[in-house]
Amino acid sequence: MLEKIDLNQSIGKQDYKTEIAALEKRLASLQERITDLKIPVIIAFEGLGAAGKGTMIGRIVNPLDPRLFNVYTMSRIGEDAAMRPFLWNYWIKTPEKGRITIFDKSWHRLILPVLAARMGEKPVKSGQPESQPRKPGAQRLVVQRPLNEAEAGGFYYDVNSFEKQLADGGALIIKLFLHIGKAEQRKRFRQLEKNPATAWRVDEQDWEQNVNYDKYVKLYSEILRQTGSGERSWAIVEANDRKFATVKAFKIIIKRIEDEIHRRSQAEKPAAREEDPAFKPPGISILSGADLGKTIENRTYRKETAILQERIAELGYKLYAKRRSVSIIYEGWDAAGKGGNIKRVTERLDPRAYEVVPITAPTQEELNHHYLWRFYKKLPKDGHIAIFDRSWYGRLLVERVENLTPPEDWQRAYKEINDMERHLYNHGMILFKFWLHIDKDEQLARFKAREADPMKRYKITADDWRNREKWDGYVEAVDEMLLRTNTEIAPWTVVESNCKKYARVRTLGIIVEELEKRLRG
Amino acid sequence: MLEKIDLNQSIGKQDYKTEIAALEKRLASLQERITDLKIPVIIAFEGLGAAGKGTMIGRIVNPLDPRLFNVYTMSRIGEDAAMRPFLWNYWIKTPEKGRITIFDKSWHRLILPVLAARMGEKPVKSGQPESQPRKPGAQRLVVQRPLNEAEAGGFYYDVNSFEKQLADGGALIIKLFLHIGKAEQRKRFRQLEKNPATAWRVDEQDWEQNVNYDKYVKLYSEILRQTGSGERSWAIVEANDRKFATVKAFKIIIKRIEDEIHRRSQAEKPAAREEDPAFKPPGISILSGADLGKTIENRTYRKETAILQERIAELGYKLYAKRRSVSIIYEGWDAAGKGGNIKRVTERLDPRAYEVVPITAPTQEELNHHYLWRFYKKLPKDGHIAIFDRSWYGRLLVERVENLTPPEDWQRAYKEINDMERHLYNHGMILFKFWLHIDKDEQLARFKAREADPMKRYKITADDWRNREKWDGYVEAVDEMLLRTNTEIAPWTVVESNCKKYARVRTLGIIVEELEKRLRG
Repeated sequence: MLEKIDLNQSIGKQDYKTEIAALEKRLASLQERITDLKIPVIIAFEGLGAAGKGTMIGRIVNPLDPRLFNVYTMSRIGEDAAMRPFLWNYWIKTPEKGRITIFDKSWHRLILPVLAARMGEKPVKSGQPESQPRKPGAQRLVVQRPLNEAEAGGFYYDVNSFEKQLADGGALIIKLFLHIGKAEQRKRFRQLEKNPATAWRVDEQDWEQNVNYDKYVKLYSEILRQTGSGERSWAIVEANDRKFATVKAFKIIIKRIEDEIHRRSQAEKPAAREEDPAFKPPGISILSGADLGKTIENRTYRKETAILQERIAELGYKLYAKRRSVSIIYEGWDAAGKGGNIKRVTERLDPRAYEVVPITAPTQEELNHHYLWRFYKKLPKDGHIAIFDRSWYGRLLVERVENLTPPEDWQRAYKEINDMERHLYNHGMILFKFWLHIDKDEQLARFKAREADPMKRYKITADDWRNREKWDGYVEAVDEMLLRTNTEIAPWTVVESNCKKYARVRTLGIIVEELEKRLRG
Repeated sequence: MLEKIDLNQSIGKQDYKTEIAALEKRLASLQERITDLKIPVIIAFEGLGAAGKGTMIGRIVNPLDPRLFNVYTMSRIGEDAAMRPFLWNYWIKTPEKGRITIFDKSWHRLILPVLAARMGEKPVKSGQPESQPRKPGAQRLVVQRPLNEAEAGGFYYDVNSFEKQLADGGALIIKLFLHIGKAEQRKRFRQLEKNPATAWRVDEQDWEQNVNYDKYVKLYSEILRQTGSGERSWAIVEANDRKFATVKAFKIIIKRIEDEIHRRSQAEKPAAREEDPAFKPPGISILSGADLGKTIENRTYRKETAILQERIAELGYKLYAKRRSVSIIYEGWDAAGKGGNIKRVTERLDPRAYEVVPITAPTQEELNHHYLWRFYKKLPKDGHIAIFDRSWYGRLLVERVENLTPPEDWQRAYKEINDMERHLYNHGMILFKFWLHIDKDEQLARFKAREADPMKRYKITADDWRNREKWDGYVEAVDEMLLRTNTEIAPWTVVESNCKKYARVRTLGIIVEELEKRLRG
């Protein structure tokens, strides 16, 4: 792919000046359109060392309003990112509608060390502390994010699905690869080294890349091939001549933005969507199969709860020691007992080990992002537990039943959520998904009991009664959700909750059993 | 202080059970009151190693609704915190109104290594990577946050002012020191070491603390003395007996919350405030002294801008190499030219080195926090520049003039903001504060020009016209702000901006000159 590029294209100084002035003007006016049309734009710059990414980004943002873009350099990562699924660090930086995020180095390069190793060659150095002297106390940072085996295996799938999700959500993604030749790279490293002000920017790793230039070109070609199909294709910018490269990059970015604006004015659907293999309701209701008559004796309940809580507390420490993360998702009917159930799970846990994340209606800022953005932000760190009191499944429940989201959007969410959960699973996260199930009569009894109790009256609102009227709509939505997102790596459990105590012991039991299995050894 | 505590207090098992059951109930019902009254509560736990902080926190949160509190363990810090003023890491974790934040280890201990060194003894080890084995690639973290000299010198002032600001803002701060004896500590370390599941929790540093127990007690006594005056006093909990300690901690927390609720029901003012030495307007207007006739020739403008931008770009790299951070604050009249001025500063800067932070009306989440919270969140990392397009000074401008904040609150802000800026300065941050000044006629002309230009019409709104009517109120507010927050470490510059080009060269010149001075050598 990269091997056959003619790198010797150039442009004269005068032409450059004229062209750039015009291009800057066009880009500036396009930015206003982006803001008006509320398009989130992501521009990713990749390339070998000294290809000129930094300088290029400087030129590109020059005509832009500095209040409307962010530039992130993704070469070194901090603790927060090292302890979470690898896409987390990019997800949380995705732009709001109408803003531009520029990534200096993109998620695609994370697979480099793995590819190098697979090719049986000396692996690219990774995890090395930077060579630059630092202030005492400032910690050393991981240069490259290492992937575990599952992450490496699922890499292209996860990365492509990440981009597809963003594009389907309305984002414009522009990917540029700046390509320079071996001799040119060597020349640039030398120039940097000669100047004492910039010498620190060249290190051993850079020179290693120059020595093994051909290998790296091969590796990047592979990456570009695997992540550049269809509309998510890469633009390759020949960058031996900086002026030529700048003009080309401007043109590509302008063209992509203009195309997107045109597409929208035609009221086309945002990007073609590969549909899931058509889903047919299988004519069975999972919910109706639940045996809500299950109960537990008080005495057994107390004994079992004590035992299971003891074990879950120990498992919490084991999780921490093994640096595994856990997400526990609670969904269920109003008054199904989520709060009390969560309480029993956390009661004996070390409070430093978990966080309960209550999910309510999204804020304006959250609405201005992709719907998964706010959940990515709340993902647990390695060694920690996040308990979601309602979750990303709201997309398939309340947003569907209340018509808050158009059908084509929530229908896409089955796959999007499955993909997201696979990404978390690949990272090593353990997922639990509970649907707390009660029947309509039980809910009515609980609503009435709450209204009668002055201490609990605040718990019941007009919303609850309104939701209750849509019971049948919810049954349909829940059933479809349970069927289509019940994956091997993240299965659902319908927890029969007419008897709250039974439900608590049941969830505790499932968590303990699964964690013991997964943390064995 | 700590030396004379009788650590041998205890409580019988049966008494404990009865007491705790009652205390848990009270705390649970108090939490509901906290939420109703929208009180933000901060509980800080300090103590020597193995004093039982973790277990204690587990007991305290037991009766609480897990959706309404957060526990943060502050022993290790990540890059984000290491590269910012030391209070940043605590500020951003302060609770929303109605929620509880529990700090396991508080900001007070950051001064420990410095104290040890001052006492001429072997310094407490700091900046050591943790001894526990980690997943490959996960980076090593700084155990203790090291302070620079200025931070150490201003430590108690900054810490006490931090707590006062939060308390004045309506937060309840409860500080508990868990105290154990030398023999008890040794016993606990041994117990932890004996159990293979917990052995990793004891390291060399812990044993060093036990060997030098008396020294540490002396150091902590000093810290408690310096940070525990008046209403911000420490509660010392004798913790040789865990049951006794738990009961006492519960009682202290309950008492403090009940007192706070009582105080509010009496409609007392939130916490007594030491007033600033009474401010008397000096009868001079700084604004009226500005010479708005200053202009610059086009040719000179172009030449100077080019030179200054070149230098500012180089200084940006120097900042990065020296790990210094910069905040540039822009305030000024509507249409004074902030956007264009900012643009000239950033034009040639490496886009990875700066961020422009536009400040608009606060979101609901921001309103639920202390007013400085959202600005702390946006502070630049070491090596980076943040440009604030409007800033924390909104407290003294729009919030005052528009009556959005009661006078007693914004009047307190002069000192609060000066204190905050001193904290940033001590960390090594370089601060610029610009008031872009135009006169009323010039503003009118610009408003009209904008309305006449279809490309710029969106820039002018009814708000702008409304603000204009309050011109005199703003003049008063600006003058008082310029006088009272014009400190040596963070002085204001009134930038005469009737001529936009003159204003741009002026701000560029000030930034370049100051940075060259501060980054010398």
